[in-house]
Amino acid sequence: MPVQAARGTRDLLPAQMHRRLTVIGRIREVFARYGFEPLETPAMERIETLMGKYGEEGDQLIFRILERGEGGREGKADLALRYDLTVPLARVMAMNQSLPLPFKRYQVQPVWRADRPQRGRFREFYQCDADIVGVRSRLADAECLALATDALEALGFRDYTLHLNHRGLLAALVSAAGVSDREGDVLTAIDKLDKIGRDGVTEDLRRRGVPEPAIERLWGLLAAPDSLDAVATAIGAEARVAADELRQTMDLAGALGARQVRFDATLARGLSYYTGPVYEVKLAEGGVGTVAAGGRYDGLVGMFSGKEVPAVGVSLGLERLLVVMEERGMLGSATTRTRGLVTLFSPELVPASLGLAARLRAAGVDVETWLGEPGALGKQFKYAANKGIPFAVVLGPEEAAAGRVALKDLATGHQEAIDEAALVARLRG
Amino acid sequence: MPVQAARGTRDLLPAQMHRRLTVIGRIREVFARYGFEPLETPAMERIETLMGKYGEEGDQLIFRILERGEGGREGKADLALRYDLTVPLARVMAMNQSLPLPFKRYQVQPVWRADRPQRGRFREFYQCDADIVGVRSRLADAECLALATDALEALGFRDYTLHLNHRGLLAALVSAAGVSDREGDVLTAIDKLDKIGRDGVTEDLRRRGVPEPAIERLWGLLAAPDSLDAVATAIGAEARVAADELRQTMDLAGALGARQVRFDATLARGLSYYTGPVYEVKLAEGGVGTVAAGGRYDGLVGMFSGKEVPAVGVSLGLERLLVVMEERGMLGSATTRTRGLVTLFSPELVPASLGLAARLRAAGVDVETWLGEPGALGKQFKYAANKGIPFAVVLGPEEAAAGRVALKDLATGHQEAIDEAALVARLRG
Repeated sequence: MPVQAARGTRDLLPAQMHRRLTVIGRIREVFARYGFEPLETPAMERIETLMGKYGEEGDQLIFRILERGEGGREGKADLALRYDLTVPLARVMAMNQSLPLPFKRYQVQPVWRADRPQRGRFREFYQCDADIVGVRSRLADAECLALATDALEALGFRDYTLHLNHRGLLAALVSAAGVSDREGDVLTAIDKLDKIGRDGVTEDLRRRGVPEPAIERLWGLLAAPDSLDAVATAIGAEARVAADELRQTMDLAGALGARQVRFDATLARGLSYYTGPVYEVKLAEGGVGTVAAGGRYDGLVGMFSGKEVPAVGVSLGLERLLVVMEERGMLGSATTRTRGLVTLFSPELVPASLGLAARLRAAGVDVETWLGEPGALGKQFKYAANKGIPFAVVLGPEEAAAGRVALKDLATGHQEAIDEAALVARLRG
Repeated sequence: MPVQAARGTRDLLPAQMHRRLTVIGRIREVFARYGFEPLETPAMERIETLMGKYGEEGDQLIFRILERGEGGREGKADLALRYDLTVPLARVMAMNQSLPLPFKRYQVQPVWRADRPQRGRFREFYQCDADIVGVRSRLADAECLALATDALEALGFRDYTLHLNHRGLLAALVSAAGVSDREGDVLTAIDKLDKIGRDGVTEDLRRRGVPEPAIERLWGLLAAPDSLDAVATAIGAEARVAADELRQTMDLAGALGARQVRFDATLARGLSYYTGPVYEVKLAEGGVGTVAAGGRYDGLVGMFSGKEVPAVGVSLGLERLLVVMEERGMLGSATTRTRGLVTLFSPELVPASLGLAARLRAAGVDVETWLGEPGALGKQFKYAANKGIPFAVVLGPEEAAAGRVALKDLATGHQEAIDEAALVARLRG
C-alpha cells in the first residue's frame, strides 16, 4: 500500500507555505491596524458544543473523535473537530463573560469538514475571520466593510466590489411582492442575477413555482437594483429602517476609507443567521466569485450564554484568495526567503565560509550554507538555483587573500568580486 | 451543564496570543535566517501512518477519528490526529522523493496527545521543529547547534548551555564498563547527575541492580564528564569515531557562531531513535530544565520509503519557553499591538474622527476607534486603558478648528494638543 496523506488533505510544501505566510502576514497586519486582536481555540471541541449548530447536513460533516484515557468507552465519540470559527467564538464568549466589550477578535485557523473531496476542495482548510462582538451600532458594521476592502487592497487587488444589502430589506422586498412564504426560493433565484441575467432569474422563479404576478411585482421593485433610494421607495414604509441602516453604514464606511462599496438589492447570502447588513466582496475578472463575505448576526454568539449578543464580522476566503493571487501572478515568482547560498570552496576554507555565513545572518540576511562536500561549485550553484535562491557566495583563496568574496547572480550567471559590506547590501536586495 | 472547552485544552485569548505570535515570529525569523523552509502537514493522518510509531504507550495516547462519508463504517476509526511532527515529515519525504536534498524544513504546529491533563500539560500543544534531511555530514549537526543557540539568543536568553553528547560514545561507555546489557538502566541513571549528584546516581544504579564493580568502572570512565578528551581516552578505541565526530561538530558549530556548547558525557536523551550527536539546551536558573533538544536520527525518516535517510534536527520547547519568558518578564507588559483609541467626541465629529483613524492606519499605526455612543470620554478612556492601549486620541471642536488633536497618555494622564504629523510619530513610539 502506498504511503498517503489522509483523503482530502494535502501537505503545504515550502513554496506554497512561503506564499501562504506572506498572505496571512499581510492580512494579520490589516486586522491589527483596526485593533482586532488574535484568538486561537483548540482543534477539538466537546461533541455537544458542535452538534446541532450547522443543520442536519452539517452534523454529518463533523469529524468525531473517540474517547480516550481512563474511563474511555469503546467506540464512543466525545470530541469533534472544529467545523468553523464562529461556534468556538460563541463558546469563548460564554466562558469569558467578563471580557471587556466590544471584543474584536480575528482568528486564522484550519477547520475540518468531511465533504466529498473535489478538485480545490479539501477536508482541512483555513478560515480567516474578524468579528466585533457586543456592539449594535452601525459603526461596527461600517468598520467591517472598511476592513474587508482594506484587506483586499493590502493583498494587491483593485478589481473588487463590495456588494452590500440588508436582511431586513430582503424581507421587506419579498413581503411587498406578496411572496413572504417563498422567501428562500425567491432569494436564491435573485441572488443569481449577476450570473444568469434577468431572463435566467425569471426562468428560475417560474421553475420554483413563483406565480407570474409576483415575479412581475418583484421586477417592478427591483427596477434599479443598485439604487438604494429607488428600491426603498418602491418597497415603501417596510423598507425604511433597513434602508436607513444601510445609508448610515455606507456613510460611516466611507469616512473610514472603505472603497468600491455598492448597494445590491439582489445580494441574498445563503446563511440564514444574518440579521442586518450582509455583504460579499467579488472580483470583476476571472469569474472567481466571492473572496470575502460577512454581515451582522445578532442571534448566534449568545447561543451558549442564553443572552442576545450582537455581533458583526467578515470572513476572508483565504484559500480562494491564494488560488487567485497565484493565478494572477500577484505573489511574485519567489519560492523562498533565502537570499544566498554560501558555498564551500575547499576543506581548508570551510571555517572561513561558515564565519561569513554567521556574519551575514547577524546582519539580518537569510543565507543557507552548502552542507555537502566542499568543492565542485557547479553542483552547489545548481542546488541553489533549483531551490530558487537568487545568489551564490564564493569565498575562494584569492578572495580570502584580498578580503573580498565572489557574488554570483544565479539567474544571469554574472559574477563579481565585492567586499563584505557591499555583499550585505546586495543580498538584502 | 456549563459550557466548557474539551478537557485538557485551552483557548489562547488575545493577551496570550500577542506574546505567542511575538515568540513564534522571532523563532521563524531565526529558522529562515539559516535557510530552513516552512512546512505544514494536515492535522489528520491515516491511522496506519501513526500507529506503531510511538511505542505501545504512544499508541494509547493517539486521538482516533471516526470514518465519515460514503462507505463510512459505524464506530470504525480510520484517521488519527498528528502526535508529533517527525512521523508526518517522514511521510512527506516518502511521498515526495523528488524533493531536492538536503531538505531543510521547519514546522510550527499543534500536536495532540490524550495524556492525563495536568497543570501546565495540555492535550493540544505546539511543537516547533527544524530538521535537515538527507545529509550525513557534520556540517548539518553543527548547523542545528548554531540554530538552537541563535534561537535562544533571539528570544533574549543568556543563561543557557547546550549539552552535547553522542549515542556512539554512550554505547562505548556502557560497553567499557561491561554493562552493555543494562544500557537503558545505566543511561537513565547517569542522565540525572546534574540533578541528584554523584551519590544519588550511585544509589540509583544500585537500586537498578547494576553490580558494584561496574558502577566503579563507570565513575572511573566519567572522572571528568565534561572533558571529551578525558572521557574518550578513558574509554579507548571504541570511543574514537564518536569522539572525532563530536570534535568536528563542535569546531564547525563554533565557526557558525554557536555559543555556550559544552560536552556532557552524562547526557543520555530518552529517545531511543538517535544515532549520532544528541543535545539539550538547559537554562541555568529557575530549574526549568530542557528548553530545546535534538540530535541525529538516521533511521527514522526512511521508515515509509524503506531507504535509510539521514536526518538531524532540533526541537524548541515552545510552550515551556513561553512560560519561562512570561515568568521572567522577558515579554514586556504589552497585551496588545494597538497603540491608540481614536475617541468619538460628539455625533457631529464622528466622520472627522473616523477619517483621522483611516489616515493613521494608512500611515501604518494600529488604532482602534470607539464603537459606542459618541461623548462621555471618561468611559472611552477607561475602555482603552483596560485593554492595555497606551494612548487615546481626541478630536474635539477646538482641536478640529485648530487643525490639531489632543493626545492623552492613559498611563500618566498627561494630555497635549499636537498636529497630525506629530501624532503619527508619537503613536509609532
